[in-house]
Amino acid sequence: MSTSIKKIGVLTSGGDAPGMNAALRSVVRTCAYHNIECVGIYRGYQGLIEGDLEVLDARSVRNIINRGGTILKSARSKEFRTKEGRAKAHQQLLDNQIDALVLIGGDGTFTGGMIFNEEYGYPVIGIPGTIDNDIDGTTFTLGYDTALNTVVDAIDRIRDTASSHDRLFFIEVMGRDCGQLALNSGVGAGAEEILIPEANLGLDRLLHSLERSRKSGKTSSIVVVAEGDKSGKNVFELAEYVEENLPNYDIRVSVLGHMQRGGSPSCFDRVLASRMGVRAVESLMEGKSNLMVGIIKDEIVLTPIEQAIKGKTTIDSELMRVCEIMST
Amino acid sequence: MSTSIKKIGVLTSGGDAPGMNAALRSVVRTCAYHNIECVGIYRGYQGLIEGDLEVLDARSVRNIINRGGTILKSARSKEFRTKEGRAKAHQQLLDNQIDALVLIGGDGTFTGGMIFNEEYGYPVIGIPGTIDNDIDGTTFTLGYDTALNTVVDAIDRIRDTASSHDRLFFIEVMGRDCGQLALNSGVGAGAEEILIPEANLGLDRLLHSLERSRKSGKTSSIVVVAEGDKSGKNVFELAEYVEENLPNYDIRVSVLGHMQRGGSPSCFDRVLASRMGVRAVESLMEGKSNLMVGIIKDEIVLTPIEQAIKGKTTIDSELMRVCEIMST
Amino acid sequence: MSTSIKKIGVLTSGGDAPGMNAALRSVVRTCAYHNIECVGIYRGYQGLIEGDLEVLDARSVRNIINRGGTILKSARSKEFRTKEGRAKAHQQLLDNQIDALVLIGGDGTFTGGMIFNEEYGYPVIGIPGTIDNDIDGTTFTLGYDTALNTVVDAIDRIRDTASSHDRLFFIEVMGRDCGQLALNSGVGAGAEEILIPEANLGLDRLLHSLERSRKSGKTSSIVVVAEGDKSGKNVFELAEYVEENLPNYDIRVSVLGHMQRGGSPSCFDRVLASRMGVRAVESLMEGKSNLMVGIIKDEIVLTPIEQAIKGKTTIDSELMRVCEIMST
Amino acid sequence: MSTSIKKIGVLTSGGDAPGMNAALRSVVRTCAYHNIECVGIYRGYQGLIEGDLEVLDARSVRNIINRGGTILKSARSKEFRTKEGRAKAHQQLLDNQIDALVLIGGDGTFTGGMIFNEEYGYPVIGIPGTIDNDIDGTTFTLGYDTALNTVVDAIDRIRDTASSHDRLFFIEVMGRDCGQLALNSGVGAGAEEILIPEANLGLDRLLHSLERSRKSGKTSSIVVVAEGDKSGKNVFELAEYVEENLPNYDIRVSVLGHMQRGGSPSCFDRVLASRMGVRAVESLMEGKSNLMVGIIKDEIVLTPIEQAIKGKTTIDSELMRVCEIMST
Repeated sequence: MSTSIKKIGVLTSGGDAPGMNAALRSVVRTCAYHNIECVGIYRGYQGLIEGDLEVLDARSVRNIINRGGTILKSARSKEFRTKEGRAKAHQQLLDNQIDALVLIGGDGTFTGGMIFNEEYGYPVIGIPGTIDNDIDGTTFTLGYDTALNTVVDAIDRIRDTASSHDRLFFIEVMGRDCGQLALNSGVGAGAEEILIPEANLGLDRLLHSLERSRKSGKTSSIVVVAEGDKSGKNVFELAEYVEENLPNYDIRVSVLGHMQRGGSPSCFDRVLASRMGVRAVESLMEGKSNLMVGIIKDEIVLTPIEQAIKGKTTIDSELMRVCEIMST
Repeated sequence: MSTSIKKIGVLTSGGDAPGMNAALRSVVRTCAYHNIECVGIYRGYQGLIEGDLEVLDARSVRNIINRGGTILKSARSKEFRTKEGRAKAHQQLLDNQIDALVLIGGDGTFTGGMIFNEEYGYPVIGIPGTIDNDIDGTTFTLGYDTALNTVVDAIDRIRDTASSHDRLFFIEVMGRDCGQLALNSGVGAGAEEILIPEANLGLDRLLHSLERSRKSGKTSSIVVVAEGDKSGKNVFELAEYVEENLPNYDIRVSVLGHMQRGGSPSCFDRVLASRMGVRAVESLMEGKSNLMVGIIKDEIVLTPIEQAIKGKTTIDSELMRVCEIMST
Repeated sequence: MSTSIKKIGVLTSGGDAPGMNAALRSVVRTCAYHNIECVGIYRGYQGLIEGDLEVLDARSVRNIINRGGTILKSARSKEFRTKEGRAKAHQQLLDNQIDALVLIGGDGTFTGGMIFNEEYGYPVIGIPGTIDNDIDGTTFTLGYDTALNTVVDAIDRIRDTASSHDRLFFIEVMGRDCGQLALNSGVGAGAEEILIPEANLGLDRLLHSLERSRKSGKTSSIVVVAEGDKSGKNVFELAEYVEENLPNYDIRVSVLGHMQRGGSPSCFDRVLASRMGVRAVESLMEGKSNLMVGIIKDEIVLTPIEQAIKGKTTIDSELMRVCEIMST
Repeated sequence: MSTSIKKIGVLTSGGDAPGMNAALRSVVRTCAYHNIECVGIYRGYQGLIEGDLEVLDARSVRNIINRGGTILKSARSKEFRTKEGRAKAHQQLLDNQIDALVLIGGDGTFTGGMIFNEEYGYPVIGIPGTIDNDIDGTTFTLGYDTALNTVVDAIDRIRDTASSHDRLFFIEVMGRDCGQLALNSGVGAGAEEILIPEANLGLDRLLHSLERSRKSGKTSSIVVVAEGDKSGKNVFELAEYVEENLPNYDIRVSVLGHMQRGGSPSCFDRVLASRMGVRAVESLMEGKSNLMVGIIKDEIVLTPIEQAIKGKTTIDSELMRVCEIMST
């Protein structure tokens, strides 16, 4: 592979996700494999502006494939949203003779990268890392599979106590405006009801379904609520609403919170991260830019960043139906 | 062992805890070993009043040693708090020729059992099952060790994201009025500060400590807050207070919630449950009553129930000191 | 959906895999949803021959989605391999008015089902459950994703001790004649070398690679060996061979063994099992037969059983290359 | 606390164990707290001889409390077993003005330390780190509780497949000459039989017990075998012996192996390590030497090293009895 790329920078930005370190390791080792120098940029775009850089070799990324979070750290950068900030960032790249960037993050990260690419024609390739799985151009984002397992494990635990006390639990799951994490973890945890932003079925239906469930002999139930749910009520208000309208339920609420973002990545996320890192570096070497690496239909593919950041807008209707049948 | 006990009843009551099933299994198998019939009572005292009983043999409790919650279910019983309710319960025991009871639960369970014993001279032995470890007469309650691991695992995950974003996290841990779960899990998770009801050191000290921590170069921190903390502020108010008084911190709150009560019990809890179950049944066979089985100084011992329900009032000052030194 | 199917039988056969219970639950609930009676057949084909059956309703499969193994049990049946055995099995199905079968298992299970279908024209649909991922017609078999995580978790633990002692570990991973489990878990665990049956690169290359690794400063290494590896040496002989030819290595061997087959299924396996169960039942309702449900290119699809049992014969060359680059 | 100790060295030696890093962190931070300089010695006594040292401050041990293995690495040192080797080691300590040593390890580590102390009067304090729990002077060694959970988790997985196939499993558990790990994990995993070196009950009894078990309706069984078992047969030979003498059993063997040594430490081990580290450093400050820190009867205590290395020779007969009753 002939290339004019001699030095690649890599950063993580936005919310951290399990698998980011595995992707970083892959980027660094692919660079080493191709005799390209690799520079880690700390704290995302803010660290780039400030020149918070460190050369990374194959040894630097030993024993990080299994670690959650990101050793490069992440940060929000107001400065990078300004023209001046981006100019500083560009100057840092020139000063350090960095020829191209690999951006590991979510839609905010990619939006920044796209604008930067537009302004300076600077080569960037994105790797999607977010537990929300809300990026177009990839069936799975890094961290999503791990978060599914974390959520399912937490709900399994809650079900122990729900079953023991014949309780109804409302459990809030992360995912911002995207219901994928809630829908899939809800099906995986055997939730009786799953409320997601993409399918606002109304509160009447929830009451009806819980009522029917109880009549059929179910004494405990789990309702999974996506944090971005559009029922007009948050998870506490939902619980209150049901309490008022369905007497004699013993109701509890649990907001799973930030533990969903951490933990050692699943094998799926580690392998996907490794594959994506290779493709990201080799795509830059081939002169490609302004693309995001993704996996679609079992294959590693490239999508224009612009398209990726539009976000997923459809839900999997087959899975919604599976969920309904399973609640029989 | 000669005994006049021919049939023993067993129930779980109060908040469920990992290890309750392992204790149940032990009670059932110890009965089988001694050719005593064993009757499982569903839904605690309420099920006893209603005669919700089932004979259990060694096979009935196969493959439950590793399961969280309680297959006998648990429930609160207002009726058992009345004289009439207890009379019904007693009649059920007579009707079913049950000679003695093993009570698996916490202080509420034991209080009920003690009153019942006082009124009817009915033989009862308690096994302490609660994640709160707030029972006198035992160094460890069943479920406490499992909950410690659950909490530490959750905080490990949160630390991934805290470290990646240089954040300060306030994490609420269960334990009712007892700080043991918070203190031990906080030390185990390497928390920078731990706020427990037994040691209200004041909010000034918290601010001071966080400030010092930041000056020494720590960029992320975990503050563990026991749910029973007596600072006068709940975990959200604490976070707000620090936010107002320590500018430039990126603060998040996580309430771990009911997931702390579930999960497959740790080996420690399973072994302890097995040992306690044997001792409970054999103590009844020896004609003992109104006692709780516990573990103190590495040995299985018996304590008068009356003393057990007073609850732990002291904290381990050595461990408080360890915590302070570790935050250096 | 109009259908002449009134009663469906379901069995698990062959090696058990996490997710089999989740698939069973899905089959049972999909039947309930469509008002079809569902009959569980214990111990695979042998139980079918012996009439070891039980009617299952939606309640029967509560709280099994998260459990490893199979509550229907599995068994090998020599008798079903005979014409007489299959005749008995067919008679049982007639006697019990069972209209069609869902077969959850691997290639042995499907081969039996195909012969049975050929002989009696009896409707069967397969669901692929095996940790080996060695079935054609599906990108993922049930249990494979869970086993990947189990293997990676075990290797993470072994790496702790390998790193602490500067050791070289040879770790045998299951998968029969298929290297998928070894290859993917090896990449996920960051193994330095992965030996699989599909890519016999020779022992010289292994020595050379380990030597190079050591020269570059690596002091500990993990070599993952698929159980079906065709190097001509088993994992112990491989370790001896390296010991003889590469002096001064501190070498250990670990055969992960049957723990790889168990455990609570991952979210991925639970969701996949739920989807496959729905499709299996509804395909039978649509009059389809002799097919296996699979997932290919992110979609649930049907493949003729005959094709499925041929087994996967190709390896993912892209992933082999990723593995090589990561070992840089 | 007044002290003449100004610099303390710390090393890990022997087999690694989860909790060693937590103990190291505690030693380092306790030194920092008391304004004592702390020096990490790599690769145990061998690194000491070679002067492989590094000054460690409170920051150096961030985020290691949850990591298995030992960041200081461990190694066997033939040289330290010679008078010359120990002389070199002593010279290194003098050259580096290190006033005292904290030794984290097992009986081999302590024997070395004791001889060293005898020869040079050099102050040493031991912290017991080994999964084998074979050290006198402490009820629990670091890593033992974690290993118990690892073993129980592995056996839980194997039970999934054992139950599904009605199989008899022989599972070898670590522990060298000590049966504690096997006995406690066996009880925790609900094993039907547990063979340990301290209680050689003979092979006839095993056959008899399995036979009785099968007659009572048990179709699958787990036999846990301590690696140091003194039946005269290893785990494979035991399985063969039973296969020959008890026809119609479907028998499998699993040697859990080195995965038992790794993994993130349990909360119990982390807290214990933190407490032991504080005591070790403060004991040296108080002028104490040639002692091992341990926990007995819920309290941190000191025992002469000489006594600690004798090893545990008794088994817990109460627990053996619990095991027998549970197998009913």
